[in-house]
Amino acid sequence: MANSSKSYLFGVVLAGGNGSRLWPVSRELFPKHLLSINDAQSLLQATVTRIEKLIPPRNISIVTNQKHLPDIKTQLNFFERSQKGMALEQLISEPCGRNTAPAIALAAMRLYLENPESIMIVLPSDHLIQEEEKFLELLKYSLQIAVKGYLVTFGIVPSSPETGYGYIKKGELIAQQANKKAYLADGFFEKPNQELAKEYLDSGQYFWNSGIFVWKTKEILRAIKIFLPDVFGTISEISTLELQGDKNAQIEEIYQNLEPISIDKGCLEKSDKIVVIPAQINWNDIGSWDKILQVLPKDGKGNFIKEGAINVGCENSLILSNERLTAAIGLKDIAVVDTKDALLICHLPEAQKVRNVFNDLLEKQATEAIEPKSSIRPWGQWSIIEEGLGYKIKKIIVNPGQSLSLQAHKHRSEYWIITQGRAEIEKDEDLIFLNKNQTIFLPLGCCHRLSNPGQDILEIIEIQTGDYLGEDDIVRFQDRYGRT
Amino acid sequence: MANSSKSYLFGVVLAGGNGSRLWPVSRELFPKHLLSINDAQSLLQATVTRIEKLIPPRNISIVTNQKHLPDIKTQLNFFERSQKGMALEQLISEPCGRNTAPAIALAAMRLYLENPESIMIVLPSDHLIQEEEKFLELLKYSLQIAVKGYLVTFGIVPSSPETGYGYIKKGELIAQQANKKAYLADGFFEKPNQELAKEYLDSGQYFWNSGIFVWKTKEILRAIKIFLPDVFGTISEISTLELQGDKNAQIEEIYQNLEPISIDKGCLEKSDKIVVIPAQINWNDIGSWDKILQVLPKDGKGNFIKEGAINVGCENSLILSNERLTAAIGLKDIAVVDTKDALLICHLPEAQKVRNVFNDLLEKQATEAIEPKSSIRPWGQWSIIEEGLGYKIKKIIVNPGQSLSLQAHKHRSEYWIITQGRAEIEKDEDLIFLNKNQTIFLPLGCCHRLSNPGQDILEIIEIQTGDYLGEDDIVRFQDRYGRT
Repeated sequence: MANSSKSYLFGVVLAGGNGSRLWPVSRELFPKHLLSINDAQSLLQATVTRIEKLIPPRNISIVTNQKHLPDIKTQLNFFERSQKGMALEQLISEPCGRNTAPAIALAAMRLYLENPESIMIVLPSDHLIQEEEKFLELLKYSLQIAVKGYLVTFGIVPSSPETGYGYIKKGELIAQQANKKAYLADGFFEKPNQELAKEYLDSGQYFWNSGIFVWKTKEILRAIKIFLPDVFGTISEISTLELQGDKNAQIEEIYQNLEPISIDKGCLEKSDKIVVIPAQINWNDIGSWDKILQVLPKDGKGNFIKEGAINVGCENSLILSNERLTAAIGLKDIAVVDTKDALLICHLPEAQKVRNVFNDLLEKQATEAIEPKSSIRPWGQWSIIEEGLGYKIKKIIVNPGQSLSLQAHKHRSEYWIITQGRAEIEKDEDLIFLNKNQTIFLPLGCCHRLSNPGQDILEIIEIQTGDYLGEDDIVRFQDRYGRT
Repeated sequence: MANSSKSYLFGVVLAGGNGSRLWPVSRELFPKHLLSINDAQSLLQATVTRIEKLIPPRNISIVTNQKHLPDIKTQLNFFERSQKGMALEQLISEPCGRNTAPAIALAAMRLYLENPESIMIVLPSDHLIQEEEKFLELLKYSLQIAVKGYLVTFGIVPSSPETGYGYIKKGELIAQQANKKAYLADGFFEKPNQELAKEYLDSGQYFWNSGIFVWKTKEILRAIKIFLPDVFGTISEISTLELQGDKNAQIEEIYQNLEPISIDKGCLEKSDKIVVIPAQINWNDIGSWDKILQVLPKDGKGNFIKEGAINVGCENSLILSNERLTAAIGLKDIAVVDTKDALLICHLPEAQKVRNVFNDLLEKQATEAIEPKSSIRPWGQWSIIEEGLGYKIKKIIVNPGQSLSLQAHKHRSEYWIITQGRAEIEKDEDLIFLNKNQTIFLPLGCCHRLSNPGQDILEIIEIQTGDYLGEDDIVRFQDRYGRT
């Protein structure tokens, strides 16, 4: 591998965000990068697939919060990618979010040990890039600049006086190739007010800070050492502990003690080696519902109305509703986002306030902010239909040929009704086949496994009863997806 | 009974509306009069309870559509009221709605046969009257006027230039008692535009047409005979058929052939014997969501926000949500009405357009316009949690000491899980007692009955499976509420 032509080139995908402003679709346990925006792929999937055109899977790391690791593995089809060389070590899990500087430092230290001459491309996992070829061309170009020791940032050429982004001002032109240019950065600027944003736009000197970076690993570590010595010290300590073997508890504690800080504020703003490469790649950070409306296809009145919803005279409105029949009458600049257990109706110019609602709910530990009511699994998906004191009702869909793990529960009994397809059920010593409308009872403690032996979808309704119904009441004996 | 002091006085409650403008709470099978507005009682219950202070139950008729009859019986606690003299014949069911003139004619013909000197008070079943004592005082006063042969209407003293109501203009003062006055009517006027409504209001000469009428039965029949000879002829024919015994099919057909027409337009507008009695009784026809907001208690910003919903800076908005956590941000003049299977978000000044949405849905036979997802029963209530191809999941609550009917189903099996309380279950020859978390399977065709022998609520989850899951697949063998 060390001899491969691309072995010096690494991708680091940052998947640590929570997307609080896209509540109620995003949740603490289902952050923005796991979402799909009018696309079969999630933002994370799209980010990884995109970068794989330049970097092989074995050189791409994902830095994420450890609580999102199972979902990330599922979304990456990890078992498939592992056959192409992706290793479990490439899923770098933070014990807690400490913003981008510690996350980047953690990844950089690992890459440096692997190859001190490596170049790393840092990519947010939850942005949309619609002009992929242009983007890849610019990335290749940026390598030529990074090789010279510069810390390269991608500056998005602004199309409107946006107040929700940070800006980078361009300085001296230092390189040019066809229509690709590289400028020294003449400063980083925080989110401006409307007036200032308009000045930035009109001047043609400013770009949106995309959070996409390209640099030699040793150059960013050098900058972190100078400008964020605490972060550098902590990460070095963690690196030493990792080399000594399993010291997870200690590593977690050390990491938690770090102050959260972004790489931009902590490092880049202070360096004189920053280069900005202007990028016109149809980029959107889809950070709030108004941004989502921007990227969705709209009708003549500026609306995106989910199929099946009724629209009577709405304008510039977003109606996202999968759960029930929705009728919207006379709305202007309103987002309606309906999920199984939570409903948001928001005046779009105030879309940033969704974050406050989310944070308030999180503080109260409201499940509506924490858990999604449905989840994709390697074998299919489940969704919660109803919950009450002592019972929970789920719909479970098993894809053809797939199996859940062989499992048992300590606190709950389950009753299954086959509503579609054909089920193969291991129940203690027995193997049972059930068809549509047939039922089975799985008493507390019974060892069981559900499989779909057919060519079609298997759908069952599961009724759980018991005094504790948490997802963690599961003992896995066998699992074909490596989850035991 | 004929000698009772009040045997000449009858109440006729018109419960034929569908309340299409209060969708999605109202449905074709759950019309407006069955709704409760911030009150334990439904509008119908409140109307009947109110009039019972003047008229005994055995003299109160309800004219309703036959498809609403079971719900009306449940809401009226019919079995309790029947002990106070209410007879089944007092629930007059129309085979279909033909507006108020035929409904009033039908009731009047019956009352005339019972007592040709009777006085009838006609009351819409779906209006709110907050000043009940004043209203009853005015009703008593109106009897003195009606006795003289006048057709008395209640004219609501307007408090705003309302464009959603018809108006009555007052003419010559013909009687007065303390602050109660009776005027000859100087004309009926259709819903005005904003400008005209303001003129009406400023003039002090106009009142809202409340649809509350008081008259001698023979006087209204005489008027119907003159101004609506077709209606009179049809109703006479029906009356004759009824006297001849069971001719239901024939009666239905005859009734269906009537042209729909209101008593106001068909009769009152043409008569010179109309009297209007001004009424200040805090009346509201709550005909649309904006009217509902008018009568609900509001916060300092003019909002009614259902408990549990999150409000960030809303104004003059109505948030009615029982089903899921709802967050509203920055809404102005918006109604959000959330139900299990349908969601409405409506700009309040356009609240009348809800009727169009409802009618469109009804035309497509959408269940969201037809059936409510929950229903009150004499024994408790049920609600549908989830439906799919071949299965239906219900939550059933049985009140202490109550029983469902002894029943069987031809097309479905049922599986019950007790989630609260204690259940007594008859299953063919067996009597079984189940506690929380226990389950039972009721195969297709099995004869069963569910009872709550305890002092607390019994709650079960029922999973139906089968190829037909309509509410009408039920054979009742015994029923303590007379539904066999």
